[in-house]
Amino acid sequence: MEALNVIKVGGAVVEDPQALEAFLTQFAAVEGCKVLVHGGGRSATAMAARLGIETKMLNGRRITDEAMLEVVTMVYGGLVNKTIVARMQAAGLNAIGLTGTDMDCIRSDKRPSEPIDYGFAGDVRHVDGKALHTLIGAGFVPVMAPLTHDGKGQLLNTNADTIAAEVAKGLVPFYDVTLTFCFEKKGVLADPTDEDSVIPRINRAKYDALVADGTLSDGMLPKFHNAFSALDAGVVRVVITSANNLSGGTVINQE
Amino acid sequence: MEALNVIKVGGAVVEDPQALEAFLTQFAAVEGCKVLVHGGGRSATAMAARLGIETKMLNGRRITDEAMLEVVTMVYGGLVNKTIVARMQAAGLNAIGLTGTDMDCIRSDKRPSEPIDYGFAGDVRHVDGKALHTLIGAGFVPVMAPLTHDGKGQLLNTNADTIAAEVAKGLVPFYDVTLTFCFEKKGVLADPTDEDSVIPRINRAKYDALVADGTLSDGMLPKFHNAFSALDAGVVRVVITSANNLSGGTVINQE
Repeated sequence: MEALNVIKVGGAVVEDPQALEAFLTQFAAVEGCKVLVHGGGRSATAMAARLGIETKMLNGRRITDEAMLEVVTMVYGGLVNKTIVARMQAAGLNAIGLTGTDMDCIRSDKRPSEPIDYGFAGDVRHVDGKALHTLIGAGFVPVMAPLTHDGKGQLLNTNADTIAAEVAKGLVPFYDVTLTFCFEKKGVLADPTDEDSVIPRINRAKYDALVADGTLSDGMLPKFHNAFSALDAGVVRVVITSANNLSGGTVINQE
Repeated sequence: MEALNVIKVGGAVVEDPQALEAFLTQFAAVEGCKVLVHGGGRSATAMAARLGIETKMLNGRRITDEAMLEVVTMVYGGLVNKTIVARMQAAGLNAIGLTGTDMDCIRSDKRPSEPIDYGFAGDVRHVDGKALHTLIGAGFVPVMAPLTHDGKGQLLNTNADTIAAEVAKGLVPFYDVTLTFCFEKKGVLADPTDEDSVIPRINRAKYDALVADGTLSDGMLPKFHNAFSALDAGVVRVVITSANNLSGGTVINQE
């Protein structure tokens, strides 16, 4: 099967024009089929503030009331997504911006309001890999904003890391999928004070050891949860790296 | 060839939830392939006001400075477009939201700043009908926001009537295209005070007569300009009607 890369970048990369250009140069050099998943939380928070809407976070997750849903729909689906697509077109990548409601490609369930009411937050139920495959097979590069829908007309705010993992899983029947999470470091560090201490490879046994000895901090655990869930579903490998180090980083695989 | 309808609706329809639902019921009933083109000017003006950005119009066209471009990108490409797509999905229509930068489907030139500087306003240069045909052929319903790009990374605000006409022309090689403009009346009226005086059919000779006798007001002339330009390019017919009268209205054709 053909190789496909699902690459997730956070807001810090896509919201800064210079960082975005630098990233797109690297992204263009990635061989094979590809999908970009982006965040945009900082822009959403900034736009909310300009509109006098307070941003409330709990456990690192945004509480999305009706006013905030309007903001993230505008900012993720419009401003951030279309800015990336326009820049990608200029870089020769035939991008198409999508949210989960487009082509019904990511359907989700509104998160239960107990024990914590996150508002219009969606937990992914189904990815239509075939619809995405139709676009990718026609030569387009999907650029996915962190928004989904419930199929009944309701848009839902959805974590971009989760979207990346679920899209990667949904494309397993069609491609040999590599899932890459970009974050602020070059990879998983053996020594958090040493940027050059990237651990090149982590399997499940190594992961257990790194958790046991405290090398992996709490903030990293959700990324590994997403990573192993993707590997369990047939994704070939997961990479954790920085946006300016797409060919390097830490490779996570089963064995 | 297969029949295809390109239908343009203005902001008043898509920005009001009840009007949108009523319209989508009619839109769903339209047979054959279809494309929706939407406006959203009122929402953009309202959002701009909330952000303390003044809306400047000249000859009925928005002046789009950098701050206003951000607003229309958010509102047209995000809020309005994704709200419509989500509601269409709920109505069983497999919609996909697009701007002209997605798939490079509508490229435009920034309007010259002389004699009037409209800012980041785009005049359509090229529609990639083949890219749209790829989506339509796969069973998707494109929902197009009035935004285009210059191919060099710049998004541009573009008149929705023009987008509808240009998209209709771009699809002529693939479909028997009908182009429908929805506005606030049931059609072109012989007597502006009588809603039931819809003129059923207008060809070029009849148009010249209606202009000569003053039946057609200045506000209608750009619509007819778009209509005849589309007919000249091979569009089968153009319909001017209201959003709740999709099966009626005034039919404009060459002969």
